[in-house]
Order: sequence, then structure tokens, then C-alpha cells
Amino acid sequence: MTDRPLVISAPEPRTLDLIFRPERLAELRARYDIHEIETDALATLPDPVLGKARYVIGQPPIDEATLARMESLRCVFNVEGNLFLNMPYARLFERGIHVVTTMEVFARPVAEIGLGLALDLLRGITDSDLAFREGREAWGLDGNGSARLLSGADVGLIGFGSIGRSLLPLLQPFRPRLRIYDPWLPPSLIADAGAEPAALDAILRESDVIFVLASVTDENEGFLDKNAFARMRPGAVFVLLSRAGVVNFDALVAAVASGHIRAASDVFPEEPLDPEHPVRRTPGFLRSAHRAGALDVAFKMMGDMVMEDMDLLDRGLPPMRCKRAERETVDKMRSKPVEKS
Amino acid sequence: MTDRPLVISAPEPRTLDLIFRPERLAELRARYDIHEIETDALATLPDPVLGKARYVIGQPPIDEATLARMESLRCVFNVEGNLFLNMPYARLFERGIHVVTTMEVFARPVAEIGLGLALDLLRGITDSDLAFREGREAWGLDGNGSARLLSGADVGLIGFGSIGRSLLPLLQPFRPRLRIYDPWLPPSLIADAGAEPAALDAILRESDVIFVLASVTDENEGFLDKNAFARMRPGAVFVLLSRAGVVNFDALVAAVASGHIRAASDVFPEEPLDPEHPVRRTPGFLRSAHRAGALDVAFKMMGDMVMEDMDLLDRGLPPMRCKRAERETVDKMRSKPVEKS
Amino acid sequence: MTDRPLVISAPEPRTLDLIFRPERLAELRARYDIHEIETDALATLPDPVLGKARYVIGQPPIDEATLARMESLRCVFNVEGNLFLNMPYARLFERGIHVVTTMEVFARPVAEIGLGLALDLLRGITDSDLAFREGREAWGLDGNGSARLLSGADVGLIGFGSIGRSLLPLLQPFRPRLRIYDPWLPPSLIADAGAEPAALDAILRESDVIFVLASVTDENEGFLDKNAFARMRPGAVFVLLSRAGVVNFDALVAAVASGHIRAASDVFPEEPLDPEHPVRRTPGFLRSAHRAGALDVAFKMMGDMVMEDMDLLDRGLPPMRCKRAERETVDKMRSKPVEKS
Amino acid sequence: MTDRPLVISAPEPRTLDLIFRPERLAELRARYDIHEIETDALATLPDPVLGKARYVIGQPPIDEATLARMESLRCVFNVEGNLFLNMPYARLFERGIHVVTTMEVFARPVAEIGLGLALDLLRGITDSDLAFREGREAWGLDGNGSARLLSGADVGLIGFGSIGRSLLPLLQPFRPRLRIYDPWLPPSLIADAGAEPAALDAILRESDVIFVLASVTDENEGFLDKNAFARMRPGAVFVLLSRAGVVNFDALVAAVASGHIRAASDVFPEEPLDPEHPVRRTPGFLRSAHRAGALDVAFKMMGDMVMEDMDLLDRGLPPMRCKRAERETVDKMRSKPVEKS
Repeated sequence: MTDRPLVISAPEPRTLDLIFRPERLAELRARYDIHEIETDALATLPDPVLGKARYVIGQPPIDEATLARMESLRCVFNVEGNLFLNMPYARLFERGIHVVTTMEVFARPVAEIGLGLALDLLRGITDSDLAFREGREAWGLDGNGSARLLSGADVGLIGFGSIGRSLLPLLQPFRPRLRIYDPWLPPSLIADAGAEPAALDAILRESDVIFVLASVTDENEGFLDKNAFARMRPGAVFVLLSRAGVVNFDALVAAVASGHIRAASDVFPEEPLDPEHPVRRTPGFLRSAHRAGALDVAFKMMGDMVMEDMDLLDRGLPPMRCKRAERETVDKMRSKPVEKS
Repeated sequence: MTDRPLVISAPEPRTLDLIFRPERLAELRARYDIHEIETDALATLPDPVLGKARYVIGQPPIDEATLARMESLRCVFNVEGNLFLNMPYARLFERGIHVVTTMEVFARPVAEIGLGLALDLLRGITDSDLAFREGREAWGLDGNGSARLLSGADVGLIGFGSIGRSLLPLLQPFRPRLRIYDPWLPPSLIADAGAEPAALDAILRESDVIFVLASVTDENEGFLDKNAFARMRPGAVFVLLSRAGVVNFDALVAAVASGHIRAASDVFPEEPLDPEHPVRRTPGFLRSAHRAGALDVAFKMMGDMVMEDMDLLDRGLPPMRCKRAERETVDKMRSKPVEKS
Repeated sequence: MTDRPLVISAPEPRTLDLIFRPERLAELRARYDIHEIETDALATLPDPVLGKARYVIGQPPIDEATLARMESLRCVFNVEGNLFLNMPYARLFERGIHVVTTMEVFARPVAEIGLGLALDLLRGITDSDLAFREGREAWGLDGNGSARLLSGADVGLIGFGSIGRSLLPLLQPFRPRLRIYDPWLPPSLIADAGAEPAALDAILRESDVIFVLASVTDENEGFLDKNAFARMRPGAVFVLLSRAGVVNFDALVAAVASGHIRAASDVFPEEPLDPEHPVRRTPGFLRSAHRAGALDVAFKMMGDMVMEDMDLLDRGLPPMRCKRAERETVDKMRSKPVEKS
Repeated sequence: MTDRPLVISAPEPRTLDLIFRPERLAELRARYDIHEIETDALATLPDPVLGKARYVIGQPPIDEATLARMESLRCVFNVEGNLFLNMPYARLFERGIHVVTTMEVFARPVAEIGLGLALDLLRGITDSDLAFREGREAWGLDGNGSARLLSGADVGLIGFGSIGRSLLPLLQPFRPRLRIYDPWLPPSLIADAGAEPAALDAILRESDVIFVLASVTDENEGFLDKNAFARMRPGAVFVLLSRAGVVNFDALVAAVASGHIRAASDVFPEEPLDPEHPVRRTPGFLRSAHRAGALDVAFKMMGDMVMEDMDLLDRGLPPMRCKRAERETVDKMRSKPVEKS
């Protein structure tokens, strides 16, 4: 062992090569002693290693006894994003050990494609390209029967976390009437961001475009259901970017199939999806195979974030770059693990 | 005849019902005497009508002799957009009669779909939806091989008129490096707008995304040719929104077909286009059938613009809402007439 | 004479050294033949010079006969800003000769100090610094009895030309309710700029801060009078940045002296002002001695603008950088000449 | 006692009437049982009160034993802003009890006056108004010898907390080159906010305007000293808005007195300040008697923030509106208590 701080690396299902650019990885290795382990091997590490470990990259299972041996631990860098209930969070928080996630790297890519999906549905970009390929395109005004502008539209956001904060500035030049529903936030924070805090019902009933950005919790699973879609304006555009678990997916597909609304989704109840799933053939539905965030350039930012927060933590400061898990909410989250990057 | 100012209406190929909302049209009829004529009938109008006519809506042919009879004429409102050489512009300008167009109504719709087309090509929205329909989608990172972010990209605009001014604020939150080429503008105006004035060659060579917004003139016809496309970065995105005449269209299709660049276009060498035209089958090409501007809501804004400028002109002020044709450039324009709205 | 285009220079009361940076002046001299004349000497120039002159810098008197001899004239660059009725504008416009001004160089400096003056009055910056110098300052909350935030305030602009367009983006981050009155503009242009078009009365009655940016014309001289000030909210802030001629200055001073409103002004009925003028001793009045625009860096931009438009005009294009005088309004203007820079 | 949650109120040196608007205070009293106590009386409260207390408004001294009796405590709302070391923070954090401050209410008022002070110094607003009062004003260009624009200037921020986040959008329309130094933040957060992370030395050497927004800690007391001022550009503007403790105040006054820089300050080594302190007579120094944040409208927002976070905490969620004290930094802070609001 060296004098350098010790890092235990168990980033599965990611790899260090995925989340660090080469020069960043070299920097990591130069500044820290890296112990790379299988995700289940933490408890088997010898006391000197566990006792000296300042950081964990990944979210290997940690039991109470092992945690007790990790006397120098300052921070667990969860690079998967979903928080598994595989470590004693209460005890970690009691000791002041941070648990942070690097999910924010996906916010900008998701926001960009989210805007693209909304513009596609509003203007019929994909459908009219297909028609053009097949020689049945309609020209000019004749082809714009259901086309709508985003400028000045009534836009609603359901959930206002990192994706919402990335999406908001992309929407603002369209000067929409922008309403946001997020029960975990004080309304004034939403107003400060330049939007109107609103009830879910108002957003459903009074939006031309709705972006769903909410995490799944044990309280909101499937809360966007048949009844919710029925309240939406005819022809409204529904863009699902966060987790399939927040919607009743069959009800969503039915609402689109009936012609009541149009929708785009990046997430699905099972991934990969059954080749026979009806969403594959539903007109008015735009599909993206969980591609919204998963760009190589986004994964590479994870390493940058980890390094920046390690630098703060090394200096006795709190991490400011990654998102901290919170004592109150860590066990409300219900996202499923990622099976592949 | 009444005491109201007289307007000659010949808006072909538009109609008053297309370009005025009903309440606006009622207002027009209440404030002015409207003489609706066939586009070729102007010279046949009696002297009292011609002599009293303050405005023309449309661009009917006007010969020197007829113009001489129109002693009260203040403004010709060209609602088609292209300026035909069917009236003695020199004489109109000499007399201080304004010739204005309402093309700016299309700027915002075109800018919106332009951004949508660019995001589609950068992220493969249409292609991956098609793959999904057919059960051959790639999930997550595997499906994002050629995906690119707009954030931080090198973006170039060729031409900076009303579309450019509408597109610029939509691009700015992506914090691109934004270069603009427009030889009809002083560089400092481009800098004031928050972009870098640049040479065409720099934009071609150093952009990830290029938006073509330039009008066709007798000087720039086909200036984006094989050589221009060859200078572009591999994988760059080319979005053509103004007029097909500024590109060598065969060279554009070839550049896309070769895989060198990706492209979207709203305009085509002939409209409607030959059912066998190869662009219909070119992978990497996204097609829009001259639908970018032609929304009903845009046409309806024409009437608003006309009414606002009539109000200024009635008060002895110059028109400020519509775009004025300029003595120096009116006969350089080479756009083809619109055959249908 | 050379082959270079010929420029007649009579920039009084400016000088070429004031309005051109040295390298720009060298460039001007390299590209053009410059004939520097006394402002009254134009008619005395020989025919070959007059006949070849493409541009005039300055606004020397031009009579009809002299103008007739100036066969190549394309543009008069008025670098003073006020348009004297000392040339036959109707004939110039008939011939398509542009008359342009470089006043826009002052827009940004004036907007900056305008915001500074408003913040000063809202927060009592000058008054509380004076109190502090004299040891009678009030601390914290005690010193903020009449302090007001600009954020969220009701702000009105009277006149929306180049200063308004420079001021608007400086105000927008304060998220004011922003109303603009400008009878020479179509309301939708104001709305497009992100403000509300409003009647003068609404602005007077419902603003916390009013910026006066309007030019003097033969129609609006003294239109902000005793009655106008009486309609303002008690404690409102009035910032006069354009011309003293638009207000009844005695009424303004009286309204401030009475404690009804607070005011700042950069312009005065006479400049320099009588040492005994009561405005010098009016509490609640903040005075600036016509310093808002007159920065050396602003004057130097005039030369840049002139050169950019000459470049366009040399290529047969219309000038786009300087502001063009308009046939309809050129003789409505009533600003007094500048006596010194 | 009622069924309502119990709040212990000891907001000294504030009062509930200062920090709550009347209707908010009524709401507070309707939703919670409020026990108003003298700041030193906490330990004397009976067990049923202490045991039921969910929130404390204020920062009364809390000893370990008393804290142990407060079994329901979720959050201490420090409405003074400075964190006194008068409670066992380590134990509070261990138990997951939040300690939050409402200082953010001052961010916007401080940012506004900060911009006003900078514009005043750049343009000489106060000094030229004084000259005007005394009949020795210089007109136009003559009065602008040392005037500078903020547009395009090199601007540096030292410290980037809530004031910085409020100031940044006010500065951005001036398109400055904006550098920020904050050793407690990861550089990429600064870059995401649209500025350049920079070393302190670069900011000192390369800025036209510097805003000091940093808190005093045990590490940075007096770090802006004679040497720091010497490194600044001649004529640069230094605006001190946070705490006098971060500068060597005598050195600051000397640097201004020498003519090397200009400065404005809202904070002073002692408040109130000695009537004979030389800063009162230093030309080039603009003084504000700790008035930057202390507006009634700001204090009233404290109550809104407290209520919003109580609402979240009541629902088992973490507070999101007030700023949380952090385990790592709570005992580094060295601000002096406020003696009066």
C-alpha cells in the first residue's frame, strides 16, 4: 500500500473504461490506490484495505459488519443510478458517509432528445418522412393538418429533477406557458426557475405537450393511468423520458391507439421489449429504445464528476457535483436495475 | 365609394380567408373599402378606383401606365413572398411607395421544424423508430453509435434573415459555437446577435450542423455544390430550409448516399417531386414536403401584419412589421413562385 | 484623383479622429479618396469631385443644385445624429440615396447608465453614500425605508428605438412586468420582443419605474407634463434618457420636489445648465450632465459602422448597420443640434 | 396541547412579525402549536414540549442533554443566517436533524444593489451627481474621462453561493468575460452556470470588475490583502458584498485612496462604524451601510421559506427551500452575529 487514499472499485454494470476517459482514468490511478473487486467480494477484503478505503465506486452489497470495518469511508459513488437497498443507508447517513449518484450525466442528452421527440410529434417529422419515402407525401399546407407549433404552447412537466432543469432552458425560447408538478419540491423553487407550480390535474387537462420526468417511487407507481390520459386535451403530445413504471403502459398505448393523444417513449415495461408488443405498431406513437441518455459522451462524464467530488472530499469538503441520496427518500425509490449500459 | 381608404385585393395564390382570421377580416372590411379583383384585372379598373387606392394586397402585374394612375398608392403588400418582376419597382421606390412581404410569418415555424430535423438526425429519431417498428431496434448505448449532442456542437448558419433570427434563440441554450455567413450583412450585426461572423468555407469545414437559410439570388444559385459538401466534416448534419435553388441537389443526395454527411430538406428541385427521385430512398436523408412554414396559424398571421402596417401607413408612418423590398436587391431574387399554399 | 471611390468628409461637430480608431482611419484612407471640407464648402467643390463623390460623412448643407451635380452619391452618413433640415431629403430619397445616422453607438452606453440610475434611485445609492460621508448613515433595515427591488417591478418604456432594444435585455433578468408605449411601432413587434404594448396612460399609472427613450418630434414636444407626472404612482422612479424636449422640465422638477416621484435625467432644457437652476438642489433628483452616451468607445464605433455600410454599398447592397432616415419621418424630428461632443 | 405539530420559536434577533407576512403568520399559527420562548430558555421547557417539538425557529443554544430530550426534532430553522457554535451539530447531523438557514432571501436584493454599485463606479454616477449639485459638472465626453462600460468587461466573482447565483443572470446580458473563483465548488458547476472557473490570482490580475461574495471562514479571513489589491488592474472596480472579514479593510481603503482601484462596500469592520473612520472620506469609495440585503420584503420571504420546508418535512421529505448547514463546513464559518436586523 502507498500513501495515496484508497478507492474500492466495483462499478458493475458499468466499467471504469466506460465511465472514465483514458486520461481521467490515468489521473485516478495516479492519485489513488484502486482496488478493483467483483461486486460481491467486498466483505472478503482484508481489514487494512477496508479500514483505509476512503471511497467506493459502484454499489456493491455492504452489510453492517463490513461497513463497521470501513472506518475511513467518506463516500459511495453509485455509478448505476438506481439505489439498491443493499447497504445500511441509515447507518451510512448516521456516520456522515455520503452516497451519491452520477445520474445527472444523462440529463442533458435526455432533455435534447425529449425536445426532439416533442417537435417530431408536433410537426409529424417521422410520419411525413415515411410518407415521402413511399411517395404518398402531402405538400405544404395539405401536409400540415395536425401540425402544431411549440411556440406559445401550454407545456407541462411532471417531475422537476435534473432532466427538468436541463429541459427548461431548451423550452424557454419557445415562450410556452410552462407548468410544473413536483410534490417533492417547494412551489417557490419552481417559480424561481421561471415556471408555474401546478397540480397534476391542471397539467393533464391544460397542456398541449407533457414531459414525464418523474422517478418511480413506492407512492407513484402507475399513477399516470387510463383516467389521467382521458383528462388530456385531444391531440396533446405526451413524452415519457424517465421510467415506464410511472405510467400504466397499456393505458398509454390505448390512449394513443384511440387517436386521443400522441406519445413518444424512451422507456418500456420490459427492456428489451416483446417483438409482438402492440406499441410497435401503434400509429401516433414514437419509440426510442432507452437511447435517450445512453451516449458514450454521457458515461464519460461520470468519471469527471467522481473525480471532482473526490477532490472536494479529499479536502474535507462535502461533494457538490454528484447528486446525494437523502435519508428521507432513499428507500422510496423503485427503479429497476439497469441490465446493460 | 365611401370615405374609407381603398384597398385593392388580389392575393392569389393566397385568399383573404387564408391570410386573415375571421375577426381580422371583418375589421379589414369595416375600416377599408375592399376591391377584390382577379390578379390580371388591375389595369381595367376605372380611374376613380385606381386613383383612390391606398394599398394593394397581393402582387398583381402593374404596368407603368397603370401605376401612374394610382396616385394615392402607399404600399403593395406582397403576401406570396417571392417578388416577381411584374411591376416597375424603380418607379415605385422613386415615388416612395413601399413594397413589403409577409414572409416573416414563416420564420418561427420553419425555425422550429429546423431544430426538430437537426435533433432527429443527430439522435437518429426517425431511423430508430422505424427499426423499433420492425423489431430490429438496438437498446441503450448499442443504439447510439452515431448519436451526437447538439449541446456544445459547432453550428453554422448560411444566411441570416428572418428564419435565422428565429432559429438563433432556439439554438442558444445548447451553447453551440455558432458561426454565421451572410454576405449581405455587416459582420458586427452578427456579432451583436451573439454569433461569430464567418466565411462560408469556415462554416463548411468546421461545423457539426449546418442550417441553410439563404434566399436564391442570381449570384448564389447552386453555390452549395459537390465541392462544398466534400469540405464538410464526416457525419455532419446539413439542414436545408430555404430554397432548393441554392444547392446542387444531385450533389447533396450523392453526399448523403455516400455516407459522408446526413441531411434533411424541406425543399426540392421540383415540387411535387418525381415519385422515382432517388432522394426518396437515400438512407441518412430526412424529407419534409415543403411543410416547414405552411401552417394555417402562420398564414393567419399575414393578415395581422398587413393590418398593423396599414395602421402605421394610415397615420403617415412607415411600415415596420412587414419586410420591405429594397431597391438594391429586389431584382436579384430568383425564387420560383409558389404554386399552391 | 485615383480609382478609389470618393468620400467627402464634413463630420462637424465630430472629427474623423473622434469617430475612427486610428487603424480604421488608415483603412478608410487606403480604400477611399477622402476630401475633407469645411461644412459650408460643399457647393464650392469642382464638378469632378462632386460628380464622383459616392459618400458624404457628416451633414453639410446641400442645396438642390449641388445635389444635382452629385451624380454618384449613394449615402450620406450623418454622424451627428440629429437630422437638420438642410438638404432636400425628398429629392435624396427619390434618387435612392440613403441618409443614415450612427446614433445607435450610444444605445448600449445609455442603456447601461439608465439601469444604473434606476437602481440608484430604487436603493438610494447616492443619497446613502452622501449620508455615510457625513456620518449620518442609517444601518440595515433602518436605512432601507424607501428602498425597492427592481425584480418583479412594473416597468414602463416610453419609446422603443435603439436604446430600448439595448435596455430590454438588461431588464429581463429582473423579470419585471414590462410595458412599452411607442406609437410608431406595431404592437406585435413589442410583444415579439418580450414586452407588453401599452397605452401611455397605463404606463404612467401602473409603473414603478419609467424609462423615457422617445425622440422629440413636432407632435410630442413636452407631452410628459404636470398632468402626466400626477398620474404616476407615489414613489415611482422616472428616468429620462433621450431628450429634455419630451418633458415639461419645470413640471418634472416640481413633481420630484413635492416628493411625489423620484427622477434621474441625463438631459436638460439648456446644456450647460444655469448654475442657479433649481434641479441642482432638488432632493430625489439624480443628475447626469449628458454623459450617458458620450463615451470615447462609443464615438469610435461610429467609424466601424460607417466602414461596414460603405462596404455593403460598394457592393451594390443597401446599408444595414447605420439607421436609415425615413421619408415619412425625417421632417418630424425636432432635436436640437449637439454643440459639443 | 393540540394534535398539531409543535414549533419552538426563538427567532432573536429577528421577530416572527419581521419574518412572516401577517397572513403567513396566521397560517403558521393555524397549522402548528407555537411555543415562543426567550432564546436562553430552551432547556427549561418541560419534557412534553421538548419531546413533541418538531421544529425550532431560531438558533437558541441547545446543549447535549436538552437535545436528547427533543425526540421529535426534525429541523432547526436558523433565521439569523450565521451559524453559532451553540448546539452540538455533530449530534444533530448524526440523528438526521436538519439545520437550515434562510439567508438566501438576501441574495436577490444584494445582487441588485451589487450591480447598481458597480455601474455607479464604472460611470461615476454618484460623483457626477455631486458635482452637478455643486455646479462643477463636466458635460458629455468631458465628463466621461474615466467612464467604462460593463458590456464586454472582464468580470470576476470571488465566491459563488446564493448571491453569485442571483448576480450571474443580471450580469449575463452585458456579455462579460466572467470568471469565478470558489474553492468549495467543482469547476464544472461553474462552467455549467455559464462562467469560467478560475484561480484567485487570475481574477485579481485580469478583471475590470470584481464582486466579493465569499463567506468568512477560519481559512480565508483577510485573504484579500494589500498584496491582492496591488495585483488588480489600475482603475478596476472592487465591490464587497459579503463580509468585511474576508478583506484587510485598511489595505482596501489604502488601495482606493492611492487611486489604484475604486471600491464599493456594503460591510465594514465594525458596524456601526467610527465616525472618524477614513473610509468615510476616501474619494473613489462608495459606501453602503449594510443595506444591501436588509429590505423588509426580503425578511418577509424568510417566513415563506420556513413554511414551504415545514410542509415538505411534515410529509417526510427533506427540506429543499432553505440552505442546509453541512457537517463538513458548519464549524468553519466565522461570521459575526447580526446585532440588529
